[in-house]
Amino acid sequence: MAVSSRRRLGADARRAQLIELGLEVLAKEPRESVALDRISERAGISRGLLFHYFPSKRDYHVAVVRAAAGRLLEATEPDPALEVEERLRAGLDSYLDFVEENESLYRSLVRGAAGADRGLQEVFDETRGRFVGRTAAQLGVDRPEPALRLALRGWLAFVEEAALDWLEHRDLGREDLVRVLEACFRTAVETTLPA
Amino acid sequence: MAVSSRRRLGADARRAQLIELGLEVLAKEPRESVALDRISERAGISRGLLFHYFPSKRDYHVAVVRAAAGRLLEATEPDPALEVEERLRAGLDSYLDFVEENESLYRSLVRGAAGADRGLQEVFDETRGRFVGRTAAQLGVDRPEPALRLALRGWLAFVEEAALDWLEHRDLGREDLVRVLEACFRTAVETTLPA
Repeated sequence: MAVSSRRRLGADARRAQLIELGLEVLAKEPRESVALDRISERAGISRGLLFHYFPSKRDYHVAVVRAAAGRLLEATEPDPALEVEERLRAGLDSYLDFVEENESLYRSLVRGAAGADRGLQEVFDETRGRFVGRTAAQLGVDRPEPALRLALRGWLAFVEEAALDWLEHRDLGREDLVRVLEACFRTAVETTLPA
Repeated sequence: MAVSSRRRLGADARRAQLIELGLEVLAKEPRESVALDRISERAGISRGLLFHYFPSKRDYHVAVVRAAAGRLLEATEPDPALEVEERLRAGLDSYLDFVEENESLYRSLVRGAAGADRGLQEVFDETRGRFVGRTAAQLGVDRPEPALRLALRGWLAFVEEAALDWLEHRDLGREDLVRVLEACFRTAVETTLPA
């Protein structure tokens, strides 16, 4: 996205621009304070003005993480052109692409799921819920029974945690990671999907 | 534990007493402010004096959650008198007993794993690490290879999340929950344990 520091933007456009820049700069930058300087600089506004558009640093961060979660959901949208059994593999591949390219934002999304930050908690819960619903739909289930709901939620936690471990240690090939995620998915579903 | 409001306690004994009361009162009480009144009352000290022993409410809470994590680890210690294949089942049973009896503390432990509270994050990471190490040891593995380490960590996240879902909805029998946890454990290990 080309960013002109000269253009005068309306509030909505400015907010969208700042979120877009946040997605870029915060993707791998864990030191938020440095990032905010860079973001306002690239938007051609003062750091102070950034807080005209977002009440606080925290609000801005939550807005960027929310946008990142939207991208993740979009990137992993099941592709109806694929055979059903290939969809999981394709989804996991896109998921891990996102994880690799957005390490910091991914960490905020899945680790921000704590009581302390209600904003991140909401984004996380909503995203997790969307994933559960979508995965159930791929299995042809509209409203999952308790056992399947719990198993899908557990499996998604498995995926999130395994992806964090993978990022942290970088000592396992992606193939090996995907193999265990797929195997556990099959088991979780086979154990809980009503016959 | 019998608590005498009259006894004068040394600082260490008082701290231990307050943690003990916290384990009891905070087990199911999510509203911390109410709980603190009850705890100081039962200890026979003023609410203000509680902060003589713990710098802040947060510090006190972290200390209680740390003690709860210690109890959880203790309660789920593998029993060498059992056959190997029965140990997982026994461990999960004790784990879920703890979860049922300490709903609020359990939630703080597994949901407090966010960046926002470094104290809870540390307790969580340490507890998770102990579980991973202990589970690997039960499999006869001293230092797990990357794939197994990641799979055990992922599986523990599965257990934590499934237990939260179970608490939240209360619409699934414990037998069904344990069945899916056991099945996923077997798959996670079989897929990653070096032959």
